[in-house]
Amino acid sequence: MGTEIRIIPIKGIGEISPGANLGTIIYEALRNQDITLQQRDILVVTQKIVSKAEGQTIQLTNIHPSPLAQTIAKQGSKDPRHVEVVLRETKRIVRMDRGIIISETNHGFICANAGVDESNVNGENSLTLLPIDPDQSAQELRTQLQALADKHDIAIIISDTWGRPWRNGQVNMAIGVAGMEPLIDYRGRRDHYGYEMQASMIAIADELAAAAELVMGKTEQIPVALIRGYTYPSGAGTTRSLMRESTTDMFR
Amino acid sequence: MGTEIRIIPIKGIGEISPGANLGTIIYEALRNQDITLQQRDILVVTQKIVSKAEGQTIQLTNIHPSPLAQTIAKQGSKDPRHVEVVLRETKRIVRMDRGIIISETNHGFICANAGVDESNVNGENSLTLLPIDPDQSAQELRTQLQALADKHDIAIIISDTWGRPWRNGQVNMAIGVAGMEPLIDYRGRRDHYGYEMQASMIAIADELAAAAELVMGKTEQIPVALIRGYTYPSGAGTTRSLMRESTTDMFR
Repeated sequence: MGTEIRIIPIKGIGEISPGANLGTIIYEALRNQDITLQQRDILVVTQKIVSKAEGQTIQLTNIHPSPLAQTIAKQGSKDPRHVEVVLRETKRIVRMDRGIIISETNHGFICANAGVDESNVNGENSLTLLPIDPDQSAQELRTQLQALADKHDIAIIISDTWGRPWRNGQVNMAIGVAGMEPLIDYRGRRDHYGYEMQASMIAIADELAAAAELVMGKTEQIPVALIRGYTYPSGAGTTRSLMRESTTDMFR
Repeated sequence: MGTEIRIIPIKGIGEISPGANLGTIIYEALRNQDITLQQRDILVVTQKIVSKAEGQTIQLTNIHPSPLAQTIAKQGSKDPRHVEVVLRETKRIVRMDRGIIISETNHGFICANAGVDESNVNGENSLTLLPIDPDQSAQELRTQLQALADKHDIAIIISDTWGRPWRNGQVNMAIGVAGMEPLIDYRGRRDHYGYEMQASMIAIADELAAAAELVMGKTEQIPVALIRGYTYPSGAGTTRSLMRESTTDMFR
């Protein structure tokens, strides 16, 4: 805190194919920009390229929608095959209205359409799913990039762009982390008056993901951002700690 | 997009008293850090100092809680006077459980406790309320800072730190804006495959507020951050466009 933070777009990362070695691709892109990774750098990587590299894509032509998927699709003028894939990625439907499904995903995230996105993979109309275990994906990327850069304290955030209740517009959020704690817990600490801080757990991984989106844009092809200068708490945190327990959640 | 963004903490802003001239105070703090405001700089200012400058604080000793406030307070072991103030700032109660109130504020924001915070104002135990019209507050700050800096294209965001459904931890969000559009609407634009973007309105004001929090911390006294290098859409936007219409909101 108290020092300047830089958010740097990492360019030149082309189309990602299934099986692609993301660590090497990102490392090369950094080198092409003359960036040497430093201890305590943070790399924010969009879910889409992680999913593509991991082969988490599905071709619509192979999907046979269930009757429920067909019914839901009709209400929202959606492709029933798309809805079918959303339902397969869903552990629980939190809300459903006019073809919009707010899902609890198999991971425990709550988001629209279970994070399933339309995409173009090798010229075919297909869908990308979230990584099976985004924290594990982040951890693997971290191990790889740390080895390539010969550093031992780099953090990785995998991000996706989600809507929120009550507010228009989507924001980038963290769906996978490695090498850091995603929350800072100020409870019990005192502010400069000696007051005990209340209800102050800050979801820094989400704030870092949001900050990264500002250099990523949407129509450009910038799926990675480097954040430098932020003093995050190192640790073996996972996004599980970002998932609110249902007992304290008034909106399930 | 595509260029580096810098987030710079603005230090040395002391305690803010009712009636304080925030524009001058921030301008002096910038000068003390040898920062010259540039066209298209963004200043993110925490709600707390805006509310204090505007006298949006209430001493608990003057509050006489209603029977409802007393009932709610008992369920959550809260101060009934605090609950009374929350109720006065609330247009509609969205959820209420164990003393926690999710309010729709008089402005139309939905947040815990109507944005009412415990605070210390001149050594007295008191509460800060949200500014009466945070967009107007942002506009006034903008006019003032632009005049002082002799610039005509500076954006202001007033931020507050709020929780979210489903996710642990709070993040900074925009509650007032001036000189910019708080959303970028990518709908109808095409990505690099020629695909039409779907459901892509990005709440950049919220992402900028989140980014700013990273240099503000919680226990330090850094209530202002400068964001430089981000190409935002200029305009006369307000946070009203960030408020989701109840007809498209599944969580009211």
